Amino acid sequence: MELTFLGTGAGRPSRQRNVTSMALTLPPPRCSAWLFDCGEATQHQLMRTPIKMSRIEAVFITHLHGDHVNGLPGLLSSRSYHPGAGPLRLFGPAGIKAYLEAVFSATYSHLDYELIVTELAEGVIYEDDDYSVEAYPLQHRVPCWGYRVTEKDRPGALDAEKARSLGVPFGPLLGQLKNGRDVRLPDGRFVRSTDVTAPDRKGRIISILGDTVPCGTIARLAADADLLVHEATFQGDMAEKAAAYGHSTTLQAAEAARMAGAKRLYMTHFSSRYREEDMDRLVAEARTLFPEAYAGSDLLSVAVTRPGEQPDGSCWA
Amino acid sequence: MELTFLGTGAGRPSRQRNVTSMALTLPPPRCSAWLFDCGEATQHQLMRTPIKMSRIEAVFITHLHGDHVNGLPGLLSSRSYHPGAGPLRLFGPAGIKAYLEAVFSATYSHLDYELIVTELAEGVIYEDDDYSVEAYPLQHRVPCWGYRVTEKDRPGALDAEKARSLGVPFGPLLGQLKNGRDVRLPDGRFVRSTDVTAPDRKGRIISILGDTVPCGTIARLAADADLLVHEATFQGDMAEKAAAYGHSTTLQAAEAARMAGAKRLYMTHFSSRYREEDMDRLVAEARTLFPEAYAGSDLLSVAVTRPGEQPDGSCWA
Repeated sequence: MELTFLGTGAGRPSRQRNVTSMALTLPPPRCSAWLFDCGEATQHQLMRTPIKMSRIEAVFITHLHGDHVNGLPGLLSSRSYHPGAGPLRLFGPAGIKAYLEAVFSATYSHLDYELIVTELAEGVIYEDDDYSVEAYPLQHRVPCWGYRVTEKDRPGALDAEKARSLGVPFGPLLGQLKNGRDVRLPDGRFVRSTDVTAPDRKGRIISILGDTVPCGTIARLAADADLLVHEATFQGDMAEKAAAYGHSTTLQAAEAARMAGAKRLYMTHFSSRYREEDMDRLVAEARTLFPEAYAGSDLLSVAVTRPGEQPDGSCWA
Repeated sequence: MELTFLGTGAGRPSRQRNVTSMALTLPPPRCSAWLFDCGEATQHQLMRTPIKMSRIEAVFITHLHGDHVNGLPGLLSSRSYHPGAGPLRLFGPAGIKAYLEAVFSATYSHLDYELIVTELAEGVIYEDDDYSVEAYPLQHRVPCWGYRVTEKDRPGALDAEKARSLGVPFGPLLGQLKNGRDVRLPDGRFVRSTDVTAPDRKGRIISILGDTVPCGTIARLAADADLLVHEATFQGDMAEKAAAYGHSTTLQAAEAARMAGAKRLYMTHFSSRYREEDMDRLVAEARTLFPEAYAGSDLLSVAVTRPGEQPDGSCWA
């Protein structure tokens, strides 16, 4: 899994940072890209990455402020031009369907693929064989949501060499061992699945939050996350201003990561008052509370890999 | 006057060309910028020019297809952040007001300046001391308009040296001569205004058309234009396809310029099938009918100056 920041600025684009969007690439063989938020010119930023528009299979919107959603009509429309673009799922707050319908109607737009729109309700909003996504409300000036993506645990790989050395014959017994079942061999001996398979590979957890002040649901969204993406619009000593605008500071983002037991924190949604030369300072602030804090930047890609595990193969090579 | 192309591609952005927009800079001391169309990421393109967001005082939309209008909500919103941003006039087809209201309502947007929206009717849609703008309907798949900007004629400069040599005393008589009136001097002699002033400076005409097939109103919009901007989505031999999509070819754009007696033609709105290496060929096609044909390209600025006249001072130096 790989998270690519497409825009990391608050409110309006600057020369350094576009408005908010990020893409989560699900590893091979799936190689889907899921977008989180879609500020203006997200499709332009995507052209600067290897991510294929046709592989974007879901878009999750945190809230309907323009800097998180103004790029949606253009991106959805352009996707029609891409060969192989199948159905696309769109998740977002109540109102997103009416918003899109109004824009598409006024601009005579239509899509050449199926768009499946889901307006959010608390809890699991999406699930398939490999992933589930939960959404919970945050606290902002307008209804705003955070997402928790959970990769399901996968059975560890079968050690075929070891199975053979234990006398397991080729055939269905091997498959049962691989799928976690213990078996009795034709000669009467008993072989445990755990004897011939690596431990289960724990699924990864990625938590991507929209704009928010510190609030109770963050711990639930970010619990044990391998990667937490949390806004940090303002520097640490501006908590009062942050609260007035419904935002968080670097220190509040770090405290949220610490409280939730997240493994790594990426901050984003920086106010345009901050320039490249300010970033070290902002990160240092966060690290006083949470050492594994980092700053997102446009077009930065972050691999989400657990310690000691193989990195995923690449989707876009 | 200077025209800056911000996006010259059709339908969707490519690495070479953004979707449609251009900015017309009115010369000093006014230094206003007028935008024509506002595809997605027009505000991003503006950041790559010296044009100041606060100096954008009018936006003229040709039609409501997304590639001409999806950048409008973001640009209008971002303009609120710019100190000194006064009222802004927005012109566009019927429906533009409802479109903006729907988007601003869904995205909780508000502006810190006055937005004056005018839905188009045929004829003069704007006039002040120095300029007038007319709009006439074109022929496209959806209602679409062309604009004709006319700079008013200005009296020629007074030649003070010559007036003194003819015995005109300092004072009100000089002012009358400058304003085009002939005068009788205290000693009884008669002096004509044309004796002591340069000829009237003819105002320039710039004609900017939206998407269209060849149609009757183009000649009226582009008559004697110093600069005509005409779409050329397709190459010369694709007239049938162009017609099916409501567009024009290079040859049709050139023929329109020729028929209207325009001085110079800039083509824009090129299909994304055309790359940089195709441009010479497309321009050469147009020049078979109209030698003063050129291709617009993103961020190209074109000065509109009449032969023998001083270029305007710069607004953005």
